[in-house]
Amino acid sequence: MEPIFLRPLGAIHTPYREIAGMPIQSVGAVGVAGWIELAPEFQAGLQDVAGLEYLILIYHLHRQTSARLSVIPFLDNQPRGVFATRSPQRPNALGLSIVRLVAVDGLRLDVEDVDMLDGTPLLDIKPYVPAFDVRHTERVGWFAGNAHRAVQARADERFTPPAGEAA
Amino acid sequence: MEPIFLRPLGAIHTPYREIAGMPIQSVGAVGVAGWIELAPEFQAGLQDVAGLEYLILIYHLHRQTSARLSVIPFLDNQPRGVFATRSPQRPNALGLSIVRLVAVDGLRLDVEDVDMLDGTPLLDIKPYVPAFDVRHTERVGWFAGNAHRAVQARADERFTPPAGEAA
Repeated sequence: MEPIFLRPLGAIHTPYREIAGMPIQSVGAVGVAGWIELAPEFQAGLQDVAGLEYLILIYHLHRQTSARLSVIPFLDNQPRGVFATRSPQRPNALGLSIVRLVAVDGLRLDVEDVDMLDGTPLLDIKPYVPAFDVRHTERVGWFAGNAHRAVQARADERFTPPAGEAA
Repeated sequence: MEPIFLRPLGAIHTPYREIAGMPIQSVGAVGVAGWIELAPEFQAGLQDVAGLEYLILIYHLHRQTSARLSVIPFLDNQPRGVFATRSPQRPNALGLSIVRLVAVDGLRLDVEDVDMLDGTPLLDIKPYVPAFDVRHTERVGWFAGNAHRAVQARADERFTPPAGEAA
């Protein structure tokens, strides 16, 4: 199958300049303020966005330069298949976060609950719609008994590329 | 900012060979069976996946050949900014669906609730974890009074590329 090329729509600005110490999920970043700077050519796509409370952001994990299929997640101490984790070190470095929209002003979106690095390239904004996006299940595999810790857990160095390897 | 290069991890197989008549969200496809065929090089990433009930799939909307910033969504009759919709005709043709995992057998994942075209290139699999991914809000903008209709609504021709334009 052919490779796919995407172009950044803009950048996500956050307080996080390095991976160590970051929240590992947006539920661990409640109230943390950031903002999205959209490129001017996409402004018309923001119509009606102000009416939404939560947005799904898909973005490029741009500091990840290598992928692993087996990772030790921040919430665990043993290796797990990467597709059973939210680890950034994935075959395609796509990040997914749900952020709270505070305000839209021209090309700028003020948001909260940001858990990505400052300057992260934004690839898509989708509305979070509970009628589409909420699922309830107890079958969460290795996350059982661990997931709640994401509220307090912070990233460490394990997914930080060696010096010189980061873009 | 530089373009981003992704490679398909495999393909998603579904009963849908054309856009018209498809469900427009996975909540409109409950119980519809499909399967994922992962490329052999990624098999180790599937460890621990079998313990999960729901997976988030990110995929390439490969039949979309053009983007629009203003679209008339399937659930509405007036134009909306594309980032306030789940329309497939987006600047980056990334699709997002939550599917129910039924079984994992080698490189094959049997899933339900599929709402994408047969042969869709898969870009990422993430675990759906209610503690991370559930948000409750009434502030859903133009979806208010419309979102529930996604269970019954079916796609029509509006996002189908003209003949000869589709890959």
